[in-house]
Formats: sequence, structure tokens, C-alpha cells
Amino acid sequence: MPEAKPKSNWKLKVHEVIYEADTPAGKFFDIVLLIAIIASILLVMLESIESLDSKYHTFFNVSEWVITILFSIEYILRIISVKQPLKYVTSFYGIIDLLSTIPKYLSLIFVGTHALVAFRAIRLLRIFRVLKLVRFLSASNHLVSALRASRAKISVFMLAVLIITIILGTVMYLIEGKEHGFDNIPKSVYWCIVTLTTVGFGDITPQTPLGQIIASLIMIMGYGIIAVPTGIVTAEYSKKEKETENEDAHAISPLPKHPDEIDVNSQTCSNCLNTKHKDKAKYCDQCGYKL
Amino acid sequence: MPEAKPKSNWKLKVHEVIYEADTPAGKFFDIVLLIAIIASILLVMLESIESLDSKYHTFFNVSEWVITILFSIEYILRIISVKQPLKYVTSFYGIIDLLSTIPKYLSLIFVGTHALVAFRAIRLLRIFRVLKLVRFLSASNHLVSALRASRAKISVFMLAVLIITIILGTVMYLIEGKEHGFDNIPKSVYWCIVTLTTVGFGDITPQTPLGQIIASLIMIMGYGIIAVPTGIVTAEYSKKEKETENEDAHAISPLPKHPDEIDVNSQTCSNCLNTKHKDKAKYCDQCGYKL
Amino acid sequence: MPEAKPKSNWKLKVHEVIYEADTPAGKFFDIVLLIAIIASILLVMLESIESLDSKYHTFFNVSEWVITILFSIEYILRIISVKQPLKYVTSFYGIIDLLSTIPKYLSLIFVGTHALVAFRAIRLLRIFRVLKLVRFLSASNHLVSALRASRAKISVFMLAVLIITIILGTVMYLIEGKEHGFDNIPKSVYWCIVTLTTVGFGDITPQTPLGQIIASLIMIMGYGIIAVPTGIVTAEYSKKEKETENEDAHAISPLPKHPDEIDVNSQTCSNCLNTKHKDKAKYCDQCGYKL
Amino acid sequence: MPEAKPKSNWKLKVHEVIYEADTPAGKFFDIVLLIAIIASILLVMLESIESLDSKYHTFFNVSEWVITILFSIEYILRIISVKQPLKYVTSFYGIIDLLSTIPKYLSLIFVGTHALVAFRAIRLLRIFRVLKLVRFLSASNHLVSALRASRAKISVFMLAVLIITIILGTVMYLIEGKEHGFDNIPKSVYWCIVTLTTVGFGDITPQTPLGQIIASLIMIMGYGIIAVPTGIVTAEYSKKEKETENEDAHAISPLPKHPDEIDVNSQTCSNCLNTKHKDKAKYCDQCGYKL
Repeated sequence: MPEAKPKSNWKLKVHEVIYEADTPAGKFFDIVLLIAIIASILLVMLESIESLDSKYHTFFNVSEWVITILFSIEYILRIISVKQPLKYVTSFYGIIDLLSTIPKYLSLIFVGTHALVAFRAIRLLRIFRVLKLVRFLSASNHLVSALRASRAKISVFMLAVLIITIILGTVMYLIEGKEHGFDNIPKSVYWCIVTLTTVGFGDITPQTPLGQIIASLIMIMGYGIIAVPTGIVTAEYSKKEKETENEDAHAISPLPKHPDEIDVNSQTCSNCLNTKHKDKAKYCDQCGYKL
Repeated sequence: MPEAKPKSNWKLKVHEVIYEADTPAGKFFDIVLLIAIIASILLVMLESIESLDSKYHTFFNVSEWVITILFSIEYILRIISVKQPLKYVTSFYGIIDLLSTIPKYLSLIFVGTHALVAFRAIRLLRIFRVLKLVRFLSASNHLVSALRASRAKISVFMLAVLIITIILGTVMYLIEGKEHGFDNIPKSVYWCIVTLTTVGFGDITPQTPLGQIIASLIMIMGYGIIAVPTGIVTAEYSKKEKETENEDAHAISPLPKHPDEIDVNSQTCSNCLNTKHKDKAKYCDQCGYKL
Repeated sequence: MPEAKPKSNWKLKVHEVIYEADTPAGKFFDIVLLIAIIASILLVMLESIESLDSKYHTFFNVSEWVITILFSIEYILRIISVKQPLKYVTSFYGIIDLLSTIPKYLSLIFVGTHALVAFRAIRLLRIFRVLKLVRFLSASNHLVSALRASRAKISVFMLAVLIITIILGTVMYLIEGKEHGFDNIPKSVYWCIVTLTTVGFGDITPQTPLGQIIASLIMIMGYGIIAVPTGIVTAEYSKKEKETENEDAHAISPLPKHPDEIDVNSQTCSNCLNTKHKDKAKYCDQCGYKL
Repeated sequence: MPEAKPKSNWKLKVHEVIYEADTPAGKFFDIVLLIAIIASILLVMLESIESLDSKYHTFFNVSEWVITILFSIEYILRIISVKQPLKYVTSFYGIIDLLSTIPKYLSLIFVGTHALVAFRAIRLLRIFRVLKLVRFLSASNHLVSALRASRAKISVFMLAVLIITIILGTVMYLIEGKEHGFDNIPKSVYWCIVTLTTVGFGDITPQTPLGQIIASLIMIMGYGIIAVPTGIVTAEYSKKEKETENEDAHAISPLPKHPDEIDVNSQTCSNCLNTKHKDKAKYCDQCGYKL
């Protein structure tokens, strides 16, 4: 177990407020952050509407600055209060936190970097952290593990679908040709995906009888093979459900207790950023750091 | 148990006719009401067709008044014959009953309040009461409880889908831009939902190669993730079905008897408006009021 | 058991050829009939293509007459060779057989009765008889009984969907109005069905922000509730499959042997038109008539 | 067991490199081939984009020749190194290998045979061999056998769908007619398939009220019957999964060990082209030829 020097008191306090949702201050912080994220996303969306932007440009700009500065302060506090700042900065959420504050500052230097607006939408991903969906997701854990178990099969299925669309896309390009909107093979493959997935925009449609016959086959195929991913997910999910059920039924089960049944809380280790801790844990079970 | 004074005889009679479907008079009343509701909805629909309205305006208007007055009388009788009128008035169906009569009267005072026509469509919800679908729904109760059990998981799923559409919508806005119909981010998110759900109107379509590649990914994703809600509902429904089956198989089941198997009738308690009563019940099992 | 006089020999012969597929002659007859039906449908389809019709009008007309006369002869032979002609004439296939020959004769009397062409497409239904799909369908019998068991639940579901579309259609009519293609409530309801079922023609699309928000909700709803019929059918079908499996497993099953497992053949009783007979049956199990 | 003369040493070496993926040389060859196939398909796709083709025509042409010659050499080596060349040439992959090299040579003789480009897309099918998906597919073998078990039922279902679309297509043709885009019955049937599969291009849409009512019915039907193939595949797949599970549970299973559990490798018999061999097999289990 690595021996670690205790951090200064205010840092510990900040850590508790920012990283944990179990204290009133932590809960309040999370709610404020959640509102800030949603407000920020709404701002990005409304700003993009020209009629609104021309009217309320100053309001949008000021609000955006307020939120950006708040996020910046939060980012700095997160770095300071964590034991291993580098680990946070290079973590998934660390990068997202940085990307969601930087565009606004860059817009000061480079005028008209409108494209950077996209990075602000990335803030939305932060919602997952604030909502501490970990706890909630553990309820739908069977679903996650069912999807994981299905991954390989669905990948093979998707590869097969891709190959089919490329071949049929080429065929459609040869049959319909430029004059009916099938300008080139990539566009024709795009049309094929649009049709096979039953989306059917209708911006490109086959005009020749032969093209329409092949299109019909693609549609019926798409209509039929949707059964495959559905069948896989359903069967895997049912299996997972049944496994847990059986474990519940036989108390002296030979199988190990399901990990979901361990009570976890939302404390985050200030050393290694591990988030799933047992309810009464006193030390991080990943790095031995005192919680 | 609250001691309640017996209502006057004619009120009891009215209560029986309006609220219960077990007597011939009650059945007759229900059928008339059902026809009135359907006729009323047809009127609303046909009135909205200009060519028909200009021809048969007077007929439509008179019929509408007849139905509105009938519904008003019914509403008043419902209030009178119930023990706790306030409870009825503030109940779900009480509000619907009011909302479905009031627009026509308001159209007398405020000329041209065409918008209120929508409230008349709300009458359709009354069908559920008339059809006393309670009994029928109990047959598909496994479905309802399966949907309830799936609710949390489907909510998480829907939240994830929403976040995906907002992020991808922003990306598409940046790639395609105003010139290809992606006027602003909300509209782009709308397009993203249209595409992900495989609806595909085709009023807005990506024109750039990169936009079409991302659109393809969205479509394939939408085509694949439809498996998730389907898988959840199917698995939950199968589980519920199996539970009942097991109970049927083991006569001396350790599990409590399934509530569906109790015979209920359509009597409505005149005190608390509770509708599910055991077939031979003499007192309301919710408030102890004599049926 | 009704005592029946034996039919004249040639009638019995005809009966065997037309109604049974177990003799070489019967099989040959069925194949010829199958080809005639498919040819007839192809004729109807090709005739409707103007460019082809103007070229090959005489060929189409003559072929159509040949097929019609063949079908007429077959119809008459069917009446003659059956014990109870009235029962055949009023049976499902009897009516279809009549409807598929009569239009051509009527076109002689009433010039330009193009609309009657539809009745010729009805001939397609005859395919089911020729293919003697009975035997084949019994293989997918679990599917049929699963669909039957799901009927009530799917009906309730469909009713709910219908009510939702009518209410949302009215709302969309009020929001979008005539100027955006939502001309009247029925058309708006039609749009709502197009959207909820994820078909999405795109001939009518919401233009107002509020309309697009509600449209998004309709689409997500449609995308989600497709899980309901799928879940019901899958669960019921799995149940049926398992039932049979259990019966197979326990030889001395307390449950009656599954009817599917009785070997049936395609003989048709010449008295009562019953088609499912046990392989070694000598008398019709419905009317006692000698096969 | 047929006695076979050993091939010359270099032929054996070539066989090992081309047909087997277990040696380093074989793995390297497979990776090169995979890259060549993907590059070749990308070339075909990019060539079809006019703006790119006019710019880089020479580059595309040269690259195409390089790949074609490589494929030709590979094809010849495959013929030489195999014991029974005729068997390879007439096998599925033999024909594909030929078809993917020949078009380029033909374009030398016949100028402007652009249509042959389609055959080059067939190269994509070769990917399945290179990826040696056999091993991987055996993981999703339950899926394949589930699909096989569902085949008959899905065929009946598809036949029924086809008959429905033909009849409804004819009805729509009669109702809507030429003036609304339903030019002839085949086109009308095409529209019907577009609608039933919920693709909904929107290039042809019903305009008459009656047409829209029938269209609504078709859409709801399509929305509902998608449950059928999904239900079949899911149920069959679940059954297969459970069977394996049961076998795993009961070690002394009365059922034979599941074939998937035999370790196979990617060696290909140079005599009979059989690809699934047990890991320690020394002779081909199909023809007895030494591996």
C-alpha cells in the first residue's frame, strides 16, 4: 500500500465538494454544475438560430463567458484538489473538461472560429459524470453485459451488411447511373445504406424497372435482417436475467455473488480517480489511498 | 371505516346507470356514450375539411351543439350522483370531461377561437373509460408490468440517445451548414432524430461526402439500437409470463396468488371512485363505503 | 353419419385430380394450375404498363381469354365433382374462384370496365390452395397459434396507437395548419401514422419549431413502441415452442399429444370439403363420408 | 483412403503460404491480400467519382493494373499448388477469383466496357476467405443455425407478404391511378413494398383520401408484422443457446458434444479444399490426404 502525505485541509474540502455527491455541499455543487451544462448547451443551440442570435447576441456572449469562466475555475480546482493531477488531465473526463472550456478562449485570439462551437457541444458528455450514472447504470447492468456479449456477433453481422451494401451499391450505380442521381459508387452505397436501414430519405430513388426490383429486394432484406441484432440482444439479455434469477433462487449458489449486488457509492478516490467504492470502504480498493 | 349517509334514491339510480356497466341500463348508457364520443370525434375531423365544412356547416354546428349539451348533462349528473364531487372534478377523467365540453361554450363568447377545437379531440380519451378497458387490460397486465419494469432501463437508453442526437446534430450542422438545409443546431438535431429513428422524411438531406458518411453511421446506429428497447421489453415480458406459468403449475405455490386472478367487475365506488372491486364485494375495499 | 350415394365414376376421377395432390394426375393438375395463376397475374401486371399494352395488346387479350376459359372450366368441374356444390360455391375459395373468372366476361358486356381488373388480382389468393400450404403451415403452426394468442393484446395496443395518432394529428393540425400541408385533421392523422410507423414519406413535413419538437416526440415514441408487438409475438412464440419441447421430453406426458404431430395428407373430402385428413383415414373425420 | 503422390517441394511451400494462416509467411500473405482487396475496392469506388477520375486517371489506371496482375499471379499459384486444380477452379471462391481479374483484361480488348466494373466489386467477397471468418463464424454458429431453422417459416412469411403487396399494389393502382404517380401495377407494387417495409421514399405518395386510408393500413400492417421475423429468429436463437447451455451443465450429457467445441484450425487440404480440420489432425478428415 503506497503511503501518501495528507493534502492540505482546504484541498480535501474542495475534493469532497467536487468529486463526491454524498455531502449536502457535494450535492449542491452537482446540481449547479448540471444546470450550468444544460444552460450552456441550450446557449450553443439558440446561438445557432440566426434570428435569435442577431437579437440577443450580447446576452448570449456574456452568458457564454460566465459559463466558460465557471467551467475554467472548476477545471483548475479539479486539478488542484486531486492527488495525481496528470492522471486527471489525461483521463477521459479531464480531456472533455478542457475541450469544453478552451474554444471560447481561442475565439478571442482567432476571430471567427465558428467551427469550434462543436467542442462546446462536447460538454454534454459531462452530464454523465454529474448524473453519476454509474449507480443507475448498475441497475441496467444486465443490458450492458448483454450488449458486450453480443458485440462480436453484431460486428460480424455489421461487416456482412457493409459488404452487401458495397456490392449492391455498385450494382445500382451500373443500373441507374448518373442520370437518376446515382452519381458515383460511394453515393450509391450511401443510398443503399439509406434503403437497407429502412430510413428512405427519397432524395435519390431508382427510376428504371430493374433498379426498382433490386431496390425492393434491398428493402425486404433490410426489413428481414433487422431481426438479427434484435434476436441476439434479446436472447443474451434474457440469459443474463435468468442467470441472476437462478443465483437469487439458490442461496448457497456455487456461482460467485453478482458484482452488482455490492453496495457502491459515488465517492471518488482523490489519488487514482476510481469511482466505484463499497459503501463502508475506508481505503480505495485500487490504490490503497485513504478516502 | 367512515360512516356515510345513504344518498337519495334517484342519485343512487343515476350512479348505477352512469358508473356501472353491469345493469342493462348501465350497458345501454355506455353504448350511447361510446357512439356519442365517436360521432363527436368524426365531427371534429370532418369539420376541419374545408370543402365539407362549407357545404354542411350548419349540420356540423347543430350536431356539435347537441353532443356538447349531452356531454354537459352527463358531466352534471356525474357530479351530482357521486358522494365526493370534488374528488371526481379533480380526477383525471373529471378534468377531461370538463375540457371536452367547455370549448364549444367558449366559442360563443370569443368568436373565432378555432384553436380550442383541439380540446374536443381530448374527448377521445373518454373512450378508455367507456370501454371499461380495465377488465381487458388486466388480460394484458403482463405487458403493462413488463413495460413498467423496463421503464428505468428504457429511460437511461432514451437519455443516451438524446445526448447522441444533440452531439451528432451539432456535428452535422458544422459539416453541412445553412446552404444544405441544416439551418441551425435545433433543426440539425431534429434531422438527427428523423434519421436515427429510421423515419427519414428527406426534406433535409446531407449533400457533402463527409455529411453522408456520418449520416450512414447514424442510420446504421439507429438500425442497430432499435434492438435495445425491443430486447428489454421482450425479456421482461417473457419473465412475467413465466412467473405466472410457474404459479399455475405449482398449486400450493409459496408465492402469493397473482392479483390478476381475482375476479373484478366494473362497479365504481360512489365514494372514492375506485373501480376495481372483487365480484362479490359488498363494501369498497379502499374506503369501506357500501357499494 | 350421413349415408351418401356413390358418385358416377368419372366424377370421382375428376374429384381426385382436382382436389387431391397425391396422385400423379393430381400433382400435374396442380402444377399446371399454379403456372396458370402466376401467368395470369403477370398478364394483369404487364397489361397495366401502357408501353407494353399498346405493343402487345392482342397477345395479352388472347392469353387472358385462354386463361379465363381454363379457369371457367375448372370452376365448373369443381362444382360438378363435389358432392355438395352449394357448400363449395359459398366457401371462401369458391367465391374467389368465381370472382377471378367473371371480370373478363363482364368486360364483354360493359365496355371499358377497367376497374374490374382488380378482381383478377384476387386470383393470387388461389395460390394458397394450389400450394396446399396446409401441410407447410402446420410446420409453422406455432407461429400461427402465437399470433392468435397475441391477437387480443395487439388489438388493445393498436387501439391505443390509433387514439394517440388522432390526438397528436389534431395537435399537429393546430400547430402547423394549412400553409404547411396539414390541410385538415384526417390528413394530419395520416401524417401522424406515416411518422409513428417510421415510414416517413416526407411529402408533408412540419416546418414550425414546435411542430418539429412534437414530430420528434412522435418519432421517438414510434421507434420505442415497435418493441411492444415484437415483444408480445416473441414471448408467445417462445412459449409455444417450449410447450412442444416439454411434450417431446416427457413421453408419458399428461398433456394431450400436439395436433401438429398427426400425419395429415392433402386429400379433400368430396362431401364437406374438409382438407386435413389423417394419413390412413378411410372416412372423413368431419362428416363420415368415404374418401 | 486414396493414396496420393507427394507434390514437388516448392508447390507444397506455396500451398502453405497461400492456403494456411498458421505460419508467419501465411499470415503475412493474408494481410497483404486483405490490403490489396480493400485498396482495389477503394480504387473502384474513387474511380467512379468523376472529379477524382479526371484528375488522377493515370494513377487509378496504373494501380488497377498492378492489383490485377497481383491477383492474376495469385490465381495461377492457387491453381498450381492445389492437387485438384479443377475442383478449385469450379469452386465458389475459384469463380470469384477469376471474375475479379478478368474484367481489366477484357477492357483492353473491348474499349469502354465500363459495365464490367461491377465484377471488380465482387472482389469484396474474397474478404471472407482472407479473414478466415470460418473460425469467427463458429462463435456465432448458433446464429447461423437459428437462421437456418427459421428459414422455412420466414419463407412462408415472405411469400405471404409478397402476395399481400401484389394485391394491395393493384388496389392502389386502381384508386390512385396514373395522375398520382401510380403509373402501372408493377410500380404500384414497388410503392407497396417501399411502404410496407417502412422505408417510405416519398417519391410516390397517395393523394386521394381513400388511397391515404389504405396506405395507413399498409403502414400499420408493416409496422406490426416486422414482429414476425424478429420473433422467429429470437425464439430459435434462444433455443439454440439454451441447448448448448444444458449440454454444458450436464457433463455426462446423453447428447453428442456440440461440433463447435472441437478446435479447428485454418489449414486447407490441398487435395479437396476442405477447410475445417481438427487442431491435431494429420490427415484430411474428408479425403484422407496428408496435410
